[in-house]
Amino acid sequence: MQPKSISRPTPSAALIRKSDASLTEQLAARFAEPIRQRLLSAGARLPSVRECARKHGVSASTVVAAYDQLLAQGLIEARKQRGFFVRDARSAGASISKLPHQGSAVPTQLQPPLSAMALVRGMFQPPGSLPMPGLGSLPADWLDLPLLSQALKRVSAGAQLGALSLQYGEPAGDLRLRMALAAQLEGLGVMAQPAQIITTLGALHALDLVTRCLLRAGDCVLVDEPGWPIEFARLSAMGLRVLPVPRGEAGPDLAMMQRHITANAANPPRLYITVSVMHNPTGASLSLAAAHRVLELAKQHKFLIVEDDTYAHLAPAHLPRLAALDALERTIYISGFSKILAPNWRVGFMAAPPDLIDRLVDTKLLSNLTTPSLTEQAVAHCLESGLLRRHAERITLRLDAARARAVKLAQAHGCAFVAPPRGLFGWVDVGADTERLARAMSEEGWLLAPGALFYAARRATQLMRINFATTQEARFWRALSLARSG
Amino acid sequence: MQPKSISRPTPSAALIRKSDASLTEQLAARFAEPIRQRLLSAGARLPSVRECARKHGVSASTVVAAYDQLLAQGLIEARKQRGFFVRDARSAGASISKLPHQGSAVPTQLQPPLSAMALVRGMFQPPGSLPMPGLGSLPADWLDLPLLSQALKRVSAGAQLGALSLQYGEPAGDLRLRMALAAQLEGLGVMAQPAQIITTLGALHALDLVTRCLLRAGDCVLVDEPGWPIEFARLSAMGLRVLPVPRGEAGPDLAMMQRHITANAANPPRLYITVSVMHNPTGASLSLAAAHRVLELAKQHKFLIVEDDTYAHLAPAHLPRLAALDALERTIYISGFSKILAPNWRVGFMAAPPDLIDRLVDTKLLSNLTTPSLTEQAVAHCLESGLLRRHAERITLRLDAARARAVKLAQAHGCAFVAPPRGLFGWVDVGADTERLARAMSEEGWLLAPGALFYAARRATQLMRINFATTQEARFWRALSLARSG
Repeated sequence: MQPKSISRPTPSAALIRKSDASLTEQLAARFAEPIRQRLLSAGARLPSVRECARKHGVSASTVVAAYDQLLAQGLIEARKQRGFFVRDARSAGASISKLPHQGSAVPTQLQPPLSAMALVRGMFQPPGSLPMPGLGSLPADWLDLPLLSQALKRVSAGAQLGALSLQYGEPAGDLRLRMALAAQLEGLGVMAQPAQIITTLGALHALDLVTRCLLRAGDCVLVDEPGWPIEFARLSAMGLRVLPVPRGEAGPDLAMMQRHITANAANPPRLYITVSVMHNPTGASLSLAAAHRVLELAKQHKFLIVEDDTYAHLAPAHLPRLAALDALERTIYISGFSKILAPNWRVGFMAAPPDLIDRLVDTKLLSNLTTPSLTEQAVAHCLESGLLRRHAERITLRLDAARARAVKLAQAHGCAFVAPPRGLFGWVDVGADTERLARAMSEEGWLLAPGALFYAARRATQLMRINFATTQEARFWRALSLARSG
Repeated sequence: MQPKSISRPTPSAALIRKSDASLTEQLAARFAEPIRQRLLSAGARLPSVRECARKHGVSASTVVAAYDQLLAQGLIEARKQRGFFVRDARSAGASISKLPHQGSAVPTQLQPPLSAMALVRGMFQPPGSLPMPGLGSLPADWLDLPLLSQALKRVSAGAQLGALSLQYGEPAGDLRLRMALAAQLEGLGVMAQPAQIITTLGALHALDLVTRCLLRAGDCVLVDEPGWPIEFARLSAMGLRVLPVPRGEAGPDLAMMQRHITANAANPPRLYITVSVMHNPTGASLSLAAAHRVLELAKQHKFLIVEDDTYAHLAPAHLPRLAALDALERTIYISGFSKILAPNWRVGFMAAPPDLIDRLVDTKLLSNLTTPSLTEQAVAHCLESGLLRRHAERITLRLDAARARAVKLAQAHGCAFVAPPRGLFGWVDVGADTERLARAMSEEGWLLAPGALFYAARRATQLMRINFATTQEARFWRALSLARSG
């Protein structure tokens, strides 16, 4: 079979000429994303270097550099005398469900082309010309680079760097950061000693350490639904049994939680994982009454609670946290700084009941010894100086304005919010199957977060999650309307 | 019962007056280590602030700061009006074997006072007045702080920091580092594309990702014995069945490996984890012939090999690596920079067969999304500039000299090397049970690595591992002789 040739990576706008390096990256990204999402199939030929250079108005060396990046990323392969071809992908999207002991039975072609892993890999895209409505974080240009630069310089000046580099540091994580975190948590009503805090490589790493430490394959775990796709994928990959608890406006469906507990009396759930404040994707926050009843249920049925407060800095401090009500008796509080400071610094943490700390630290020790003090102390500086708080206040105002615009545009295009729009995310009924829509729009370069991904068992839905920071422009909503009617 | 009072934390040398901060740390460390190793029992009272200040010739505020550190580390507790007491430790040493589903059956007092976790926690000690003969890494003052400082400044200057901070980066890890690693590996005869390389939070994290991705609880895994205590602890904590393969001078005992395979025909081993070069603790390196036979056996019985080359930079480049012979077909090569550059930066990596990469990247994504580019690019700079190579050459010469001195002293004190002394570690017969010796000497402030820790099933042994960089002083060997005869 003659491989079909790719004439255009994505039909979106022209490359933006800033620097040679950025042209190379933009060009590589044009090919990388459709390949990752399997919109370009294995064996398809890329345009020749000369042809690609002509079409995009760049030099041949820019094309060569871009193809080199794609080669290095394993997305394409060079065949002698013949050119560049999309690699036979054991696709990113498919591989997550291929666990070592069950993989071979699942034919790759049954995998849906858009998956939780496609969404998570979308987080890793270099900045393109289009905003990403499905993004789970703030756009890079909302973050405060001078703040990071100052913090890093401050903590790594001269001999200080030695203490942050040459020894292994502390198993639980940098003490200065843990002290700053204890002070920050006090502001949320969560009283934790620094000795109750363990730093991690981002909030996801904290979730991972907790489940690894406390659960084993086959155990049941209660999880909010809709909920974070990566969390569903992670729990399934660990062989855990996910019991989805419908998440309403004021909190979880406690009757359903009770039914799960009753139905699994022989193997009762050991953990409830929840986003209490500014829930992802609905934006809802737990009411005080619901929080109280969740804690009662947890005590009665002896399960622990993992409170994922990843978006803490974008939410009002007065919203009640489970860890505050519970005084960290059976709640493990998790948060981080990827959404507000620096995604790639990977600084997160957990605050846990004292009697779990040693086991949790051991789990951390055995998985990666410890976490880097360099970035942890830089974050500590941002906390101690009050600069992070002021940055978060500015971000919140900017987000409020973006949300107002996005909501107006959404409604003007016939979309309805299922829950009142708050925080970073909107949970929107767009009136068409969002998985189909996401596929169609990804061909135009738009990354969507279709609602199906937010359910433990995939289901067709007209809901999707939008990021208010990246949906405030009319061109997205126009493109959506077009795709919906197409 | 009246708690017994602790009159002296350790009877070693006086505190070294450099700065207030360092005095505080030294004082805290004096108490921390015996508490962690459970040489000071729960409930024991620490000296009053005034008494402690007098005894150590420091100010009361230094003592208060040191006790604060111990409080923050959860090692002691304050009781109102009564003073400071060693906390009722769900001890570090004991907790590793208390997995959630088997823990309650194991009474804490059956745990040996020195464990793999005590050894690993020993890695985290701030520098004290005594060298640590049981240390698994180079002492901090052997490392090159100006090199780190220069590299960090270079990669984080101005706007460059944005690319290393504000986006999530790449799932497989920083591309610049992966390209530098590919070049480094070529020097060892290991041919890997950057797309075959995944960066990790140190070599241990790479080991962890590989076993999580490829194995599940109950699976069998072949491991060198003696071997790395943390690796035994890690595999057991994952519920894996460790099949120890005796490690000889030229390589593993292949007959025993074959017997393990035959005896477990229903559940054959899926992985062989080995340190091929400068094996920890024996210092031995795999012969070319043994490497060839190991690979034949792996192919025949369809298991994969994990080659842990953590000490790569301290070993001659010409020593054969399994990954070179095998051309990365069924070998996953793992190494890192904690031993040669910066332990706390936590930069490591793996190079793996192409068909495993997507699954391994997914495992990384689901456990911590990705790793920080900041330190990864700084390491890339050290590699690209050739500065790391020159640093490693200097270290190797210094280590050669230290080894010559240590060997001479050891032999003068009646200790015999089981394997010819090479690399960083000596595997020494000291003529007395080393676990007893380690307990006795830890009271004097010496951290030893008794041989028992290096076996999958603990056994009494007169062997222990010494670090040549920290055993070149006569005072250690005198102390050892004294303890042995005591």
